[in-house]
Amino acid sequence: MRILIIGAAGMVGRKLAEKLITEGSLGGRKIDTIHAFDVIEPSYGASDGPQVVSQAGNVADPVVVTELIKHKPDVIFHLAAIVSGEAEAEFDKGYAINMDGTRHLLEAVRHEGEGYCPRLVFTSSIAVFGAPFPDRIGDEFLNAPLTSYGVQKAIGELLLADCTRKGFVDGVGIRLPTIVVRPGRPNKAASSFFSGIIREPLAGQEAILPVSEEVRHWVASPAAAVGFLIHAATMDSAMLGARRSLTMPGLSITVGEMIEALKRVAGEDVAALIRREPDETITRIVDGWPRNFDARRAEQAGFTADADFDSIIRAHIADEEVRRAALG
Amino acid sequence: MRILIIGAAGMVGRKLAEKLITEGSLGGRKIDTIHAFDVIEPSYGASDGPQVVSQAGNVADPVVVTELIKHKPDVIFHLAAIVSGEAEAEFDKGYAINMDGTRHLLEAVRHEGEGYCPRLVFTSSIAVFGAPFPDRIGDEFLNAPLTSYGVQKAIGELLLADCTRKGFVDGVGIRLPTIVVRPGRPNKAASSFFSGIIREPLAGQEAILPVSEEVRHWVASPAAAVGFLIHAATMDSAMLGARRSLTMPGLSITVGEMIEALKRVAGEDVAALIRREPDETITRIVDGWPRNFDARRAEQAGFTADADFDSIIRAHIADEEVRRAALG
Repeated sequence: MRILIIGAAGMVGRKLAEKLITEGSLGGRKIDTIHAFDVIEPSYGASDGPQVVSQAGNVADPVVVTELIKHKPDVIFHLAAIVSGEAEAEFDKGYAINMDGTRHLLEAVRHEGEGYCPRLVFTSSIAVFGAPFPDRIGDEFLNAPLTSYGVQKAIGELLLADCTRKGFVDGVGIRLPTIVVRPGRPNKAASSFFSGIIREPLAGQEAILPVSEEVRHWVASPAAAVGFLIHAATMDSAMLGARRSLTMPGLSITVGEMIEALKRVAGEDVAALIRREPDETITRIVDGWPRNFDARRAEQAGFTADADFDSIIRAHIADEEVRRAALG
Repeated sequence: MRILIIGAAGMVGRKLAEKLITEGSLGGRKIDTIHAFDVIEPSYGASDGPQVVSQAGNVADPVVVTELIKHKPDVIFHLAAIVSGEAEAEFDKGYAINMDGTRHLLEAVRHEGEGYCPRLVFTSSIAVFGAPFPDRIGDEFLNAPLTSYGVQKAIGELLLADCTRKGFVDGVGIRLPTIVVRPGRPNKAASSFFSGIIREPLAGQEAILPVSEEVRHWVASPAAAVGFLIHAATMDSAMLGARRSLTMPGLSITVGEMIEALKRVAGEDVAALIRREPDETITRIVDGWPRNFDARRAEQAGFTADADFDSIIRAHIADEEVRRAALG
């Protein structure tokens, strides 16, 4: 089978590609080629299984997207997006990539011709929800995003559902929780500290906590996110009916509980590297974010959350050991 | 003040224009010009108040839409749309007019420049909702449309909210109930019979009822729709917060109750002109439609529904008498 990953150089896209390369199959079918596309050319370790074709390009260009689909991939993972902060600062760019890019992809699939109806896994986000919320957001709660990014993802969900209903594509949208622990360096996202307060102390560095320990959020590990993508690609999608996008299961956890877990896994000394430095702007932004969900439909559809936050931390430590070993 | 009506030749757009011409003011401000735009050139009776400028054109053309906004209207009513049945049959046309047209309009307003932030009243539809529903659909129920038309309207709502949040426009979206009694001739909409079973018998003609008398639906009169538009144009929009679109109040009524009202207002003989001819296709479509709402936010915002179905019928009879008198 042929797989196309759009957004294959991002953190989750890369982990997905590496897992598919290692496993060599998806849903019991042998993977012949993985077409890895992103705005910068993705690169991975050598593959002795699937052929990997890497390509750099822009999903905002319909000609480029049409070319991508000419190979008629059996499964398409669409992860490409301008992140929340950048989509807020650059209105046109956010709409061009996040909304038009998704539309170009659906149009390219539709026009590829009779009988072609690939599984398309679209990564949406809990940013499609906006305050005020109930204590737990259920599967029938409205999408009322409070960022351009959230609007663009909500529009992607609507287009995906319509094109699925019309028989152009077999779409599954998955609303990812905030991914913790993200490897690498801090970024400018307001959510960056959720990873930073675990990652930096584990690396012997100070981390800044800009919000109160009472702040509650909805998180999943990078490995859980890859698991969601693979399940979305292989599940029986007919059970979703007309509502093709699902809130993924996560852990609802406070910052204080995260720090307690860090103490249990890595010790008090490590957790002591977290410095409280309240930031009103970040606090205000985070106050508008969802805290807890009842992700019943996704659970019934077989998506599974991380067991607990301790295992998320342990998995991050193990990943970092592998990464350091690979670097020699 | 300057008013722009996009979709000014349609049934509701025409009634809105005629009311604004007659009243000569909106929200206590004198109307200087009404710019009436549609795919066919709108025409009304003579105005001795506002100057009326009629124009034919296509909202799918961004150049045309940019030109419309050059006059910096204070209030824009955006009613232009490809209707549900046509948007379902003609996928590209529906998206071009209903989605891209709305986006072009928002982009044109945004690019008109600093300090320009008109009130934009966007007519959405209860088609943004899709089965399964609760018995009464509340203001926090998800938009899960089951038609391309509903998807396009839901996307329009999302874009309107985002552009309002960003300060480009002062948007209010109103989800219209099914409008009953529509004047004129039956059309190919699956909802056509809701008007037909009142309008045709009152005109001495037979009407076909394709569904059971138990079918319940959410309706408002043409006059109520015009009232919603005017209230949306003049209300304090700040009270809406970030959620700029509202389900309009309507009457939840069964077909049987409509027929009883017709008997009360016009007599048994008139109601006897309704012929039962069950149609499985129409029954299946109508089964997927919402039946009842709790339109609390709209009611709190001062939107008012029709008093009862008897008065809807009486208003239709009065309108028809005026129309016939005007024809001589």
